[in-house]
Amino acid sequence: MAAPSRRGDPERRTRPGGRSARVNEAILTAVLDELVESGYSKLSFDKVATRAQVHRATLYRRWATKEELVAEALLAQTGQAVPMPDTGSLREDLRLLTHAIVANISAPDGQSLLRTLVSDAGQVPEISVAGRAFWSKRFALAGAIVRRGIERGELPPGTDPDFFIERLIAPLFLRLLITAEPIDAAYADRIVDTLLGTDGT
Amino acid sequence: MAAPSRRGDPERRTRPGGRSARVNEAILTAVLDELVESGYSKLSFDKVATRAQVHRATLYRRWATKEELVAEALLAQTGQAVPMPDTGSLREDLRLLTHAIVANISAPDGQSLLRTLVSDAGQVPEISVAGRAFWSKRFALAGAIVRRGIERGELPPGTDPDFFIERLIAPLFLRLLITAEPIDAAYADRIVDTLLGTDGT
Repeated sequence: MAAPSRRGDPERRTRPGGRSARVNEAILTAVLDELVESGYSKLSFDKVATRAQVHRATLYRRWATKEELVAEALLAQTGQAVPMPDTGSLREDLRLLTHAIVANISAPDGQSLLRTLVSDAGQVPEISVAGRAFWSKRFALAGAIVRRGIERGELPPGTDPDFFIERLIAPLFLRLLITAEPIDAAYADRIVDTLLGTDGT
Repeated sequence: MAAPSRRGDPERRTRPGGRSARVNEAILTAVLDELVESGYSKLSFDKVATRAQVHRATLYRRWATKEELVAEALLAQTGQAVPMPDTGSLREDLRLLTHAIVANISAPDGQSLLRTLVSDAGQVPEISVAGRAFWSKRFALAGAIVRRGIERGELPPGTDPDFFIERLIAPLFLRLLITAEPIDAAYADRIVDTLLGTDGT
């Protein structure tokens, strides 16, 4: 089955060294499609190679383990769907970030992927290796928004970026996966305003 | 297979009308065991009846739908594992509540149940009927803690109990299911202190 390129990173396509970038994109897209369809435990380098129509050796040359391959595929998708804003305003950055997260995790593909990973993580402990690589990178990126806010005096100097980001995104995942309450930009804004103390309470 | 009574509500056992209460307990325990083992979509009144060693008619007399049966089973388990404190202090109530949630959702059975439900909810839309019944009851109960806090002047009068509880519990579920970071009583206390503004920032 040919890998659709809907999840691909457009940046890769125009980058010099085009063929290698296109192969990379096909592989990472195939990883996400395999994850959504069959889950983490059934994913293999063989299946990804077949789906991406590349030689197995190509995968083994680029990634040492399944965990690294999955983490990179997740980072590529999220990097494109949830870019890190830098508008000069903390509130605006947080609004843009949470709106993009809402769109990404409530889209059918994003939601399937998330539910698959949550479910698989119960059975396959090594999934947490890929998960940790993914989240440590995403928290580092999002933490930069918080650190710039601290530098501009929009947040107290003692603010812990990771804990701030946890409190920012946690209610979105709670509603999507646990309470099945709706999430939208207005709800995201409410979380941002409450965290910044600009909600009037 | 005989249903173990480890998840049963001890209150039911000593209530007058003992046999009926014991039957109820066996049924609700069987529901949870079936959920953990086989998931929501495979759960049926027949399987629960067999597992609980009761007649199918007994189940149909007491519950009209699978959603009601599942919601009641989840509420019975959670009601026992996460009781609602009323100590006269908001901070103490929130600490006790979150500590009990941490213990309940990180226990192997609780965690499997949670992952199963999150995964199944992607495929079985009717699961949200049971989920909503469950969460609306739990938020009403936990909201009472917040409302008492408002009455005692420990929170501003405009505080929204549901939104407050969401922000209280969301980081616990985020860490358990999404980022795979550890949760414990100290982390719960940090959330409580931040929400109450008693964290020194």
